[in-house]
Amino acid sequence: MSERTGQPGSLLESVKGPRDLKLLSADELPQLAVEIRDLLISSTARAGGHLGPNLGVVELTIALHRVFDSPHDRILWDTGHQAYVHKMLTGRAGQFDTLRQEGGLSGYPSQSESEHDVIENSHASTALSYADGLAKAYKVRGESDRAVVAVIGDGALTGGMAWEALNNIAAHKDLPLIIVVNDNGRSYSPTIGGLASHLASLRTTERYENMLDFVKGNLTKVPVLGPPVYDALHGVKKGIKDVLAPQVMFEDLGLKYIGLVDGHDEQAVETALRKARGFRRPVIVHVLTKKGAGYSPAENHDEDCFHSPGVFDPLTGEEKPKPHGWTNVFSQEIVRLGAERQDIVAITAAMLGPTGLIPFSQAYPDRLYDVGIAEQHALTSAAGLALGGLHPVVALYATFLNRAFDQLLMDVALHRLPVTVVLDRAGVTGDDGASHNGMWDLSILQVVPGLSIAVPRDEPRLRELLAEAVEVDDGPTVLRYPKGPVSAEIEAVGRLGEMDVLRTGDLDVPSDVLIVSVGPMAELCLEAAALLDAQGISATVVDPRWVKPLDEALVPAARAHKLVVVVEDNGRVGGVGDAVARTLRDADVDVPVRTYGIPQRFLEHAKRAKILGEIGLTSQDIAREITEAVAKRSPEFENQPAR
Amino acid sequence: MSERTGQPGSLLESVKGPRDLKLLSADELPQLAVEIRDLLISSTARAGGHLGPNLGVVELTIALHRVFDSPHDRILWDTGHQAYVHKMLTGRAGQFDTLRQEGGLSGYPSQSESEHDVIENSHASTALSYADGLAKAYKVRGESDRAVVAVIGDGALTGGMAWEALNNIAAHKDLPLIIVVNDNGRSYSPTIGGLASHLASLRTTERYENMLDFVKGNLTKVPVLGPPVYDALHGVKKGIKDVLAPQVMFEDLGLKYIGLVDGHDEQAVETALRKARGFRRPVIVHVLTKKGAGYSPAENHDEDCFHSPGVFDPLTGEEKPKPHGWTNVFSQEIVRLGAERQDIVAITAAMLGPTGLIPFSQAYPDRLYDVGIAEQHALTSAAGLALGGLHPVVALYATFLNRAFDQLLMDVALHRLPVTVVLDRAGVTGDDGASHNGMWDLSILQVVPGLSIAVPRDEPRLRELLAEAVEVDDGPTVLRYPKGPVSAEIEAVGRLGEMDVLRTGDLDVPSDVLIVSVGPMAELCLEAAALLDAQGISATVVDPRWVKPLDEALVPAARAHKLVVVVEDNGRVGGVGDAVARTLRDADVDVPVRTYGIPQRFLEHAKRAKILGEIGLTSQDIAREITEAVAKRSPEFENQPAR
Repeated sequence: MSERTGQPGSLLESVKGPRDLKLLSADELPQLAVEIRDLLISSTARAGGHLGPNLGVVELTIALHRVFDSPHDRILWDTGHQAYVHKMLTGRAGQFDTLRQEGGLSGYPSQSESEHDVIENSHASTALSYADGLAKAYKVRGESDRAVVAVIGDGALTGGMAWEALNNIAAHKDLPLIIVVNDNGRSYSPTIGGLASHLASLRTTERYENMLDFVKGNLTKVPVLGPPVYDALHGVKKGIKDVLAPQVMFEDLGLKYIGLVDGHDEQAVETALRKARGFRRPVIVHVLTKKGAGYSPAENHDEDCFHSPGVFDPLTGEEKPKPHGWTNVFSQEIVRLGAERQDIVAITAAMLGPTGLIPFSQAYPDRLYDVGIAEQHALTSAAGLALGGLHPVVALYATFLNRAFDQLLMDVALHRLPVTVVLDRAGVTGDDGASHNGMWDLSILQVVPGLSIAVPRDEPRLRELLAEAVEVDDGPTVLRYPKGPVSAEIEAVGRLGEMDVLRTGDLDVPSDVLIVSVGPMAELCLEAAALLDAQGISATVVDPRWVKPLDEALVPAARAHKLVVVVEDNGRVGGVGDAVARTLRDADVDVPVRTYGIPQRFLEHAKRAKILGEIGLTSQDIAREITEAVAKRSPEFENQPAR
Repeated sequence: MSERTGQPGSLLESVKGPRDLKLLSADELPQLAVEIRDLLISSTARAGGHLGPNLGVVELTIALHRVFDSPHDRILWDTGHQAYVHKMLTGRAGQFDTLRQEGGLSGYPSQSESEHDVIENSHASTALSYADGLAKAYKVRGESDRAVVAVIGDGALTGGMAWEALNNIAAHKDLPLIIVVNDNGRSYSPTIGGLASHLASLRTTERYENMLDFVKGNLTKVPVLGPPVYDALHGVKKGIKDVLAPQVMFEDLGLKYIGLVDGHDEQAVETALRKARGFRRPVIVHVLTKKGAGYSPAENHDEDCFHSPGVFDPLTGEEKPKPHGWTNVFSQEIVRLGAERQDIVAITAAMLGPTGLIPFSQAYPDRLYDVGIAEQHALTSAAGLALGGLHPVVALYATFLNRAFDQLLMDVALHRLPVTVVLDRAGVTGDDGASHNGMWDLSILQVVPGLSIAVPRDEPRLRELLAEAVEVDDGPTVLRYPKGPVSAEIEAVGRLGEMDVLRTGDLDVPSDVLIVSVGPMAELCLEAAALLDAQGISATVVDPRWVKPLDEALVPAARAHKLVVVVEDNGRVGGVGDAVARTLRDADVDVPVRTYGIPQRFLEHAKRAKILGEIGLTSQDIAREITEAVAKRSPEFENQPAR
């Protein structure tokens, strides 16, 4: 058995790919599962990561790679954070000490890591659409012997695009497409909605209850890091599989259905998958798993079964306490506002905890709506709530608002409805890779007529701007802030219109450079201004607070400077920088403008600070570039005495 | 009975609002229905409009306004083009001679027209989410006596957000929310997918077949503009209602279900709606209607039942022939490319005809996928098709791509997949109002890494750029063109990098102004350049053809001019103008830039030419502004001799 070093144990070490896995005897698989769980726990304890979901799919993943022949057959993981086990079984177990580290294993599937990885995007509910397309392509190309398998959680089924895909897949009865529903009753937190209730009702049948008792009763007895008791367990559970095949809505759609299958009985899952494969047509395999299975701190974790803990003690499951973050500030403030105003309601899309809405949900349970992984519905039901006279606050991760752009534009803004969208994890987030960075919102939201956008630079501003946002009653507002600890407070030294002046270059003479700092870029901008001082270039730093619409005072302020610089934690294309430049052009102010932000490409995963350094979002880089720009554009500068 | 003047008949004239409607006896309603159909046909024959859908909901709308008490109760129309009858019954019948005219009745619900109108957005599948929010708001506010009714077509149910809403509505069993499924088996064209098949299977039960035979057999006998035979018809159909209540997937979700109801039996619909209202909880009322009912040219129109004809002869149903349009050119060209390349497949989202894909579907039936009203799935299944080695061409209306922004970004572009998206109806479309204008794509698409965007200026360029687009194999491409007749051919006089030079200001001396013309703005830009000539300002006009990424030759060209002007048929914010300005800034070229496009607000409906005039997108306006800009920025210009 394995050591507690995070190194693969002997069986796992022997599995260099699916071919090796197929050579193992069924008797060896429980030991393999233990080694996998061991490695899952030790790796994520050290670096953080999606532990709970992966503990739940150990047996399922083993079975998938024994039944199907990847990469000839394609295995698609919806919401790729459940693909750690898949990585281990496709030759990457030895690299788990680099998980989510720069240059190391991504926390999601990655085509550059392995030919077995397909979907790199970590947004939910996409796998069925990919699968539909892939299966159609193989048919057109005459490669219909290739099976396409999509693994999707019950939580992701609440996403509308999964429904669109199911509806289409059901219409093509000749495609060998296997949909594995990994049903653990949870997305991040318990799954919400009619479908969830329907699935839950299946679980309450007597036979299913018995099965669940087995799973619960036995799996929690698995010593977390000790020897396997799976053999015994499997012996007991044999026979309780494939016996429940309730008439579900899937069949109404015309899809074959196999279930329920005990997702922790590897042999049962294999049987179901082989049967599914044999149909050569679209089929749903409904597998029941337990999030966090085999690790009691995760199984017993009420909120989210260790969905994605930070660094923790593998023995006790105790997490390193997190610093006071932006999310905490929002969390407190929305509760305070909710007490003042009965018309404030909150919406989350299956992210109650991560967005900080648990305290609100406890204080005002009748004014909190968790709509499931359904950002489109989040925004348009918010429009409905606003039409009904309430002020909804929709809390999302910034990157997931992309799913509801049309709804914010057409359903909310076109109707001038007072909806406040709070975007957490805006800007560079880092560890979770390209699809988690919140670098799009400040650009695409610029086009939305009547929308106002606020970006707080520190805790007092977050409180202040949220209060201002929920006072706006003639259109939508967006507030955005990054992941992690809240920035140190930066007091304004003055006001220019509604903008905070954070630093003036010189009290009497207009300074050379006007730096427009967006939100938490303030500290960096002030540092850059100080560095410029040493170069004899004086700089004024303003924080517009509301970046859309821009304050009218910006135009005369810009006119009085030789260079205008905008710094934002957002994609460079179409963001606040472009908005400032356009505003000045439209006012016939042709002062040169320079804009700094995230280069418009998909970023590799790494720590946030590391990424900021690599993309030049540091005070040194910006001060140097400003110095060069000033020198290049205005030779007269060079001859001026340092002020 | 009514005259053929388009004026409301005597009964319809007497209905100034729902209250008057309730005072009519059941015997009078068939005559009212005839008058409504008369007005529908005469108004749309004159001005174009959504005839087929409205003919199908005459009895349904009468019943809704007799049973519910709008605006206290809220009636929400999904895809508002089915709200003409609703407009007639809420005091606007007398204004139908102004339908879709500037300053006249909108073709969609409009809050400024009536307190009975709620949803102005015409994108599909939103009504259930609005309804969910509204009903929740009334509950929070203690106004739960207000019923919320959402009318949604079976076609719109294929949209993912309708599913998200159903899933949420089912979870709130205490909300008095009535979902009327207007099932005519079609969205634009026949509805696609598993749900459609399921609904179709209901229709094949014997009793239902009998009912449908009645509907077909009798309704088509209604003289189009003659006296009513509804009385007799109703007498016959009594008793064939509420008898079929099959176990459908709605019930699996936990929703009450009433159906099938003959949607052309007004009294039957009333009975069903009263029953639904009595439940005081979410309930589905499944109503069967016939698109185009009561007008034989529409009923017998195979392609789309006169979904939205242009001007036509009300007696014969003959449509005025449409001029050779952008859509036709694409339609021909994609068939030609399809013959050359077996790997080209096409996707439409319930828009086979309007996007010009019918010839492709006839030539290559196995390589055409209609995914239903499901733009998200359209893009991500295209990603799957591309992963499988094909080159999908997804044809959409420009405004509907907003629904799939996240999918294009994360599922297609992040994976560098060769998918070509063809956007029809880009720019100002006009008649259909705010939510149909395609003024967002050139802005939001700027942020997508690795995406290339082409904008053809005329027919040869559309053919050329489409051919170039499907040759790109390392990432997505977008091609966009407007509604209507294709622009007159404009030959290039030279090349600058990959840009076409359409006009040079002067062969020897650099000209004053560089005009960057985007796509079909070329004619306007050339006219403006001619007007500038008369002012002594020389202008060069270039057409980049590919506006993302911009050609490198643009930078030196701009540097050689005193002013750079960009003209595009897209929102001014974040479009090609901003991209040109940023590109020049980044290259340290601070030549003043002026950008012209659609002001960033929601446009009222009117004819395209009229709107362009109002927003200043004319050669005169632009020439005048350039002249002013040149004069303001460069006093030295004024002293130069005219060249």
